[in-house]
Amino acid sequence: MTDNVQKKEFIYEGKAKKLFNTNDENLLWVEFKDDLTAFNAEKKGSFKGKGELNLKISTFIFMYLESKGISTHLKEAVSEVDWVVEKTNIIPLEVVIRNKASGSICKRLGLENGQKFMKPVFEVFYKKDELSDPLLTREHVELLNICNDEDYENIKTQALKINELLLPLFLDAKMDLVDFKLEFGKNKEGKIILADEISPDSCRLWDLETGESMDKDRFRKDLGQIKENYEEILNRILEVFS
Amino acid sequence: MTDNVQKKEFIYEGKAKKLFNTNDENLLWVEFKDDLTAFNAEKKGSFKGKGELNLKISTFIFMYLESKGISTHLKEAVSEVDWVVEKTNIIPLEVVIRNKASGSICKRLGLENGQKFMKPVFEVFYKKDELSDPLLTREHVELLNICNDEDYENIKTQALKINELLLPLFLDAKMDLVDFKLEFGKNKEGKIILADEISPDSCRLWDLETGESMDKDRFRKDLGQIKENYEEILNRILEVFS
Repeated sequence: MTDNVQKKEFIYEGKAKKLFNTNDENLLWVEFKDDLTAFNAEKKGSFKGKGELNLKISTFIFMYLESKGISTHLKEAVSEVDWVVEKTNIIPLEVVIRNKASGSICKRLGLENGQKFMKPVFEVFYKKDELSDPLLTREHVELLNICNDEDYENIKTQALKINELLLPLFLDAKMDLVDFKLEFGKNKEGKIILADEISPDSCRLWDLETGESMDKDRFRKDLGQIKENYEEILNRILEVFS
Repeated sequence: MTDNVQKKEFIYEGKAKKLFNTNDENLLWVEFKDDLTAFNAEKKGSFKGKGELNLKISTFIFMYLESKGISTHLKEAVSEVDWVVEKTNIIPLEVVIRNKASGSICKRLGLENGQKFMKPVFEVFYKKDELSDPLLTREHVELLNICNDEDYENIKTQALKINELLLPLFLDAKMDLVDFKLEFGKNKEGKIILADEISPDSCRLWDLETGESMDKDRFRKDLGQIKENYEEILNRILEVFS
């Protein structure tokens, strides 16, 4: 399907990816970078192979979600660090699902790290670096004209469904899916589909046995062995799919 | 009704009020203090007569709201700085209604001071000083077990109704009601009623003609003439009711 897709002019460089046009106006070229950032890019790092690991992990997860009825922007992995994706208008929300308390929510609401929620907690943040991605209520989403009520409900339903699909997948891979961040985009048919990536950069994954962080928190908290943990995540997912 | 109410032992001292028990277990004694605080009590001040001004303004507003069908905790003003109120279990939410953007929401969402909202914006903050009163989504209210869905809807409906009642009142008094904060409590019958106070400490009120702040922002921003403006607010409200 994407055999003849060619990478064209550069569009945008994000914290972890670069975007390019292609010869097909409905497709974009996404390059996964080796860069790691945290705390709204105040902390920067990188390791060789990170882009490749995230692309592989994301590819497996997106293909798995597609097989379960979730539409994603992924068309094809065209190299070890390049995706071809459907072009969408990205909805400027960082959609977060939390199964246990960790990270910002602990500090914000005075919760204990690891506290299990009775049901998954849905949060949205305004994707706006200059405001440090503030938490939004449903009322804010409306007043900022980010999306309408129907789109908001659609996003919430999809995010919770994705959580239901990912929890057993990671459990099979001996990992505890603590929380994760999603982004959605609207394609040219007006359909809201899963965009961005799902990788250790955007999930909290704890080893089921030891409870140790295997994700970007290793970078945030200077725990070391970041690459080894990202590789371990990929290997465990590969085992599940093998 | 409250003729025989006597002030009994001290319960609690807040930033702007002191609470005492009374000889009636269903009633509390509230003393309005002259203290002013801002930025989660990092800035402190006071002026002689502030408690009295706030008590008078709040009394007029609460009586007006009662006359329009809103149940409040106010039983009677028993001195120039003392209220007798119905005892309630305070719901630990700071309920905010905003008609125009000002204060924290501007910084948080990148809005321009004075921007008018298409419809009033409802926000709730967790009343918890040690967390600096964080913004809550509806999902957070549920996970923190602050109140159930029905109570939340009740509070939202009442807050928006109070806004509809206060807007024309302040307009008559030549003031623009930019935003305000409410607190609610549950009385012994389980009914959610308006508690705390409504005063220039808890509202943003701009002079309709000049647009100048007449409320606690004069203290926050060191604009001076705080007492004079609080007095002016009281006088204008008195005129409306005369």
